[in-house]
Amino acid sequence: MASSSAFSTYTLHGSKLASRIMLSNSFNEYTCNCSSLYFRQSLCGKSSSLSAKIPFGRLQNGGLVLKNRFKCMEVESAPSVMVGNKFLLDDVIEAQQFDRETLNAIFEVAHEMELIEKNSPGSQLLKGYLMATLFYEPSTRTRLSFESAMKRLGGEVLTTENAREFSSAAKGETLEDTIRTVEGYSDIIVMRHFESGAAKRAAATASIPIINAGDGPGQHPTQALLDVYTIEREIGKLDGIKVGLVGDLAYGRTVRSLAYLLAKYQDVKIYFVSPDVVRMKDDIKDYLTSMGVEWEESADLVDVASRCDVVYQTRIQRERFGERIDLYEEARGKYIVNQDVLHVMQKHAVVMHPLPRLDEITVDVDKDPRAAYFRQVKNGLYIRMALLKLLLLGW
Amino acid sequence: MASSSAFSTYTLHGSKLASRIMLSNSFNEYTCNCSSLYFRQSLCGKSSSLSAKIPFGRLQNGGLVLKNRFKCMEVESAPSVMVGNKFLLDDVIEAQQFDRETLNAIFEVAHEMELIEKNSPGSQLLKGYLMATLFYEPSTRTRLSFESAMKRLGGEVLTTENAREFSSAAKGETLEDTIRTVEGYSDIIVMRHFESGAAKRAAATASIPIINAGDGPGQHPTQALLDVYTIEREIGKLDGIKVGLVGDLAYGRTVRSLAYLLAKYQDVKIYFVSPDVVRMKDDIKDYLTSMGVEWEESADLVDVASRCDVVYQTRIQRERFGERIDLYEEARGKYIVNQDVLHVMQKHAVVMHPLPRLDEITVDVDKDPRAAYFRQVKNGLYIRMALLKLLLLGW
Amino acid sequence: MASSSAFSTYTLHGSKLASRIMLSNSFNEYTCNCSSLYFRQSLCGKSSSLSAKIPFGRLQNGGLVLKNRFKCMEVESAPSVMVGNKFLLDDVIEAQQFDRETLNAIFEVAHEMELIEKNSPGSQLLKGYLMATLFYEPSTRTRLSFESAMKRLGGEVLTTENAREFSSAAKGETLEDTIRTVEGYSDIIVMRHFESGAAKRAAATASIPIINAGDGPGQHPTQALLDVYTIEREIGKLDGIKVGLVGDLAYGRTVRSLAYLLAKYQDVKIYFVSPDVVRMKDDIKDYLTSMGVEWEESADLVDVASRCDVVYQTRIQRERFGERIDLYEEARGKYIVNQDVLHVMQKHAVVMHPLPRLDEITVDVDKDPRAAYFRQVKNGLYIRMALLKLLLLGW
Repeated sequence: MASSSAFSTYTLHGSKLASRIMLSNSFNEYTCNCSSLYFRQSLCGKSSSLSAKIPFGRLQNGGLVLKNRFKCMEVESAPSVMVGNKFLLDDVIEAQQFDRETLNAIFEVAHEMELIEKNSPGSQLLKGYLMATLFYEPSTRTRLSFESAMKRLGGEVLTTENAREFSSAAKGETLEDTIRTVEGYSDIIVMRHFESGAAKRAAATASIPIINAGDGPGQHPTQALLDVYTIEREIGKLDGIKVGLVGDLAYGRTVRSLAYLLAKYQDVKIYFVSPDVVRMKDDIKDYLTSMGVEWEESADLVDVASRCDVVYQTRIQRERFGERIDLYEEARGKYIVNQDVLHVMQKHAVVMHPLPRLDEITVDVDKDPRAAYFRQVKNGLYIRMALLKLLLLGW
Repeated sequence: MASSSAFSTYTLHGSKLASRIMLSNSFNEYTCNCSSLYFRQSLCGKSSSLSAKIPFGRLQNGGLVLKNRFKCMEVESAPSVMVGNKFLLDDVIEAQQFDRETLNAIFEVAHEMELIEKNSPGSQLLKGYLMATLFYEPSTRTRLSFESAMKRLGGEVLTTENAREFSSAAKGETLEDTIRTVEGYSDIIVMRHFESGAAKRAAATASIPIINAGDGPGQHPTQALLDVYTIEREIGKLDGIKVGLVGDLAYGRTVRSLAYLLAKYQDVKIYFVSPDVVRMKDDIKDYLTSMGVEWEESADLVDVASRCDVVYQTRIQRERFGERIDLYEEARGKYIVNQDVLHVMQKHAVVMHPLPRLDEITVDVDKDPRAAYFRQVKNGLYIRMALLKLLLLGW
Repeated sequence: MASSSAFSTYTLHGSKLASRIMLSNSFNEYTCNCSSLYFRQSLCGKSSSLSAKIPFGRLQNGGLVLKNRFKCMEVESAPSVMVGNKFLLDDVIEAQQFDRETLNAIFEVAHEMELIEKNSPGSQLLKGYLMATLFYEPSTRTRLSFESAMKRLGGEVLTTENAREFSSAAKGETLEDTIRTVEGYSDIIVMRHFESGAAKRAAATASIPIINAGDGPGQHPTQALLDVYTIEREIGKLDGIKVGLVGDLAYGRTVRSLAYLLAKYQDVKIYFVSPDVVRMKDDIKDYLTSMGVEWEESADLVDVASRCDVVYQTRIQRERFGERIDLYEEARGKYIVNQDVLHVMQKHAVVMHPLPRLDEITVDVDKDPRAAYFRQVKNGLYIRMALLKLLLLGW
C-alpha cells in the first residue's frame, strides 16, 4: 500500500489511534458507531491520484459494509482509524518489518484462525473481498496456501501463475503499471516475483495491501512468520530456546530469515550444522552477535540434536552447485535426520523443515510425534489467514 | 447464443416486448408476477436439439430463482420475455452490433455497477451463476477483468487459459464440440480465440450467452465499449467531441473499433496522428466519410492535443515490423505524450490508452488528473459487470 | 482416504451402521440428534499421526456444521457414523470398487443432483468445503467438469493444472509428501496423474477423500460411472441391454471399463466392432465369459447397430500407431457412425461417445435425438456432483 512515509517505515504506523472502532466479537469484526468515518492521513499525502482503499472493518448487524474506496481528495485532515492500541499493518514485505510485539499479536490472530478453520463450516469473515495472486514465477505450494487461506475465510480469489508471460509484462509493461491494473480488480495482491525488491516497489505503487510471497533470493516473510509461529506452538515459548539450523545455510532463505527473527527473543541459542560449502554467511553471524544471540557451528548433528528444542532441517539445493555434482552429492548426504537423530532428541523437541524434502529427513521419521513439518504446513495456512484478515479488516 | 435468425441480426431482437417483467429495485432485479413463463420464440426455431437457456430475471422475496433451462420443445408459441421496451442482448460478438440506444442503455447499467462495486461488500446479483473463461490464447489482463467482474457480482468462475492445449482441441476437436461441452458446465462463456470469427461460430452453436474477449485480429468488443464509456464518463458527452487517435492506427484493433463506434454520434471530429508506416487504413476513413464524420490526418501531435477532448494514445507493436527494427524504432519514438503535450491540452481533456504502455506516454504524465488510462481500466470492469448482468439477468 | 484396512477393501466398509444420522430432506442433508458424535473406527487405526477428517453430515436449522477435523487420538473406540444401511464411500479410485448396489445408490444421488442443477439458483449443499484439483497432466475437460460440479453445489475450488511442474514435484518431492501438504489446504482432492496406481498411493496417504480423475493408462472411474449412468438414463434399464462397442477397443480405457461394469448386470450382450489392429484384448473377453456375459465380434457396424440399445463409438487414437500413419488412416475410416447407421438403429436406441470426437461420428448425426453424447457430458457433471456430495457429506 502506497504511503507518503519513507520506505523504512512504510508498513507500520506507530501512532496510537483513538478508539472509534472497537473489538466487538470473537471473530474480531468491528462495530463502527461513528456517524462519519475518518481515514488514515498518511495515505492521503501520497502523490498518486489513485484512490486509496483503507480497510477499517465492517458495520455489524447486517448493516452496509463499506469497503473504503474513497478518493483521498474527499477526505479532510482527520484522526486516523482507531483500532484499540494496535499498530496498523499495511503490507507484508519483509520479515524485518515485524517487531516482537507485532509478531505476538499476529500469532494470537493466527491461533484464532486455527479455531475458525477447525470448527466452522466456512467462515464469512472476508466475504466480498477479492485477493489477486500475481505470481511471476510458479510456486503452487505457496499459492495454494494463500488461496486456501482466503477461501477458508469466505473470500474470493483471482489467480495468475503465469504473470511473467502476462501478455503485458511480456510486452514490456512495468511492474508499476501492472500493479495499477490489478489493484483495480482486487482488494489485496499476493505477489511472487523473480526480482529482489519487487514487492517493495509494488507496495510503493499500490493503493491496496501487498503481501510478498517471495521475491527472488530476497524475502519470503510469510515463511519466516510460520516458522516462528510453529516453534511457539510446538515448544510453547520463544525466549530461551535452542535451535539447530541444519543443511543449506548459505543459500537457504528460510534459515537466514529465521535466525534474524529469533534474534528478537531472549536467551536464544543457535547451532549451525552444515556442509562446508554451504555454511552460514558472516552477515547473519555478525548480526546475531550484535544482538547478543549466542551461536556456534558444529559438525556433529547428533550432539546438536540432543541439546536443541528445534532441529530445523533444510534441503541442499542442487541448482546451487552448477556442474559440481560431486560437491552436491557429498553435501546432501552429510546431515540426515533419521532414527539415530530422533533417538537422542528430547521428548518435547521437534523436527521442522520448510519442505519440499528429499531424503534429508528419512520417511520413517514422519511417524514420530516430534516430526512437526506437516503441522508446520498447516501453520502456514493459519498465518496467512491471519495476515489476510489483518490487512483487510484490521486488528 | 444460437438463434434461427441470420448472423447480421443475431444479437439484437428488435421487437418490443410486452411488460411482464418489471424493473423493481435499484439493482435491476425483476419481479415476475405471471404464473406461467414465456420464452423468446426466436430461440425455439433453431435446428439444434440443445436446450435453450434464456435469462429473464429472478423471482423476488427469496422465491425460487429459475435459471431457465427448459427445452424449446416444451415451449409453445408464446410472446417473448418482456423487459420494458429494451432490446434483448443474447451475445456480445462485435462492436458493430450495438446501436447508439443500446450503448447508452449499457452505459447506464455500467454506472450502476460502479456504485455496486464501490459501496457494497460483495453483491449477490449473480450468485449461483457460473462463468467459463475459455481462453485459447493467454490474456491475463482481460481474463482477470472478466473474472473480477463476475466475482464482484457474486458469481463463480471456471478458468482455462490454455484452451489451445486443451487436450480435446489438441486432439482435433472442433470449436463447436468444445462449446457444447463447456456450455454443459456453465451459464455463460467468455471466449478469447486466435481466429477471427471464432466468437461468431461459438455463439451460433451455444445455447448460453457468449462474450467475445477478442478473436484474432478481428474484434474485441468489450474494449471498444469501455473506451466509449470512458469518454462519456470523463467528458460528459459523446456528441460533438474531438478525438485524437495516436500511434499505431494500421494494426491497432482498439482505434479502429473506436472510430467505428464514434461514428454513431453527432458532430464528432477525429484526428489521426501516426507514423507513416502505420497510418489509418482507407476502409475506416471511407466509413467515417460515408457516415458524415469529419476527420483529418496530422503530423503535429501538440497541435492536435490542443484541440481535442480526448488524446487516445496507442502502443506501436514491434511484432508488426518483422526484421525492420529500424522502422520500428523510428515509429515508436515519433509521437510521445509527455509534459509538452499536457501543457497544451485543455483542462477538461483526457489522455487515454488501452494499455499496456511502454514509453509512448511518459511516467510523469500519470500524476496529472487528465491521465485517464487507469480509470479506463476500472471502467472496463464496470462494462464487463454490466454485460454479465445483462446477459444473465436481462435488463 | 487412508485407512488401516487392506487395499482391496479400502473404499467400502461393509458393516451396517446404526441410524444416528437420518435422511431428513430432499437435498439429503442430515439431522444429527445425538449429543456426542462418533467416528469411524477404521480411520483411527492408521499409523499416520495426521488428523482424520470424516464427513458425517450437517446439523440443520442453521446449527453449527462440524467439519470433523478431530485427531484420531481424541476419539475413543466408538461405533461408526450411522447412515441408514448405506455403505460408506471413502475414495473413488477404480471402477471395480463399485458393486451393483452401490452403483444404483450413486445413480439415485446423481439424479437428485440433476434436479438441483436444473432448478436451483445455486445449491449451498457443499458451502464451506474446499476441493483441490491436483492435475499432474492437463485435462481441461475433466477438470472443468469436476470444478463445475463442486461450484454447482456451493463448494470452492483450489486449482493446479501444472502439478508436474509443481516446484516441489519438480524438485523431487514424493507424491505422498505433496498429498500431505495439499490435504492441509482442502477437504477433498481430485487427482489426475500420469502413473498408473498413483491415485491408490494418494488415497493410502491422505486423511481426506481422494477421487481418481485418471491415472495413466489405468483407471478413470468417473468416466466409467457416467457411461453406465447415461445408459440407465437413456434406455431406462441396464439388465438385458445390448451394447455395441465400436472403434479403438485395444487402448480405449473407457470401453474396457464399461465392459467391466456391464458384467455386473443380467443378460447383457456386448458386440465388439473394431479394426483388426485395435481389437478388444483377451483379458476383458475372458472376464466377460467368466461372468456369463454373452459377447461377439463383428465387422458389420450396420448390422450391430440395428440390434443394439447402445452404439458406443470411440476415437481411434493416432498416438497409438507411432510411425504407421497408413495403419492409422486405414483404421480410423473403417467404422463411422453416420446417417446409414442411424437409419437402421431402433427408435429407443442411442449413440454414445466419451468425446472428443473427430470424424468417427459425422456432424449431421448431432441433430438426431438418439445422439446422446452431449447429454452424456452433462451426466458426467451429475455423477461428479453426486460423488463429491457422498464423499463429503455421506449418503
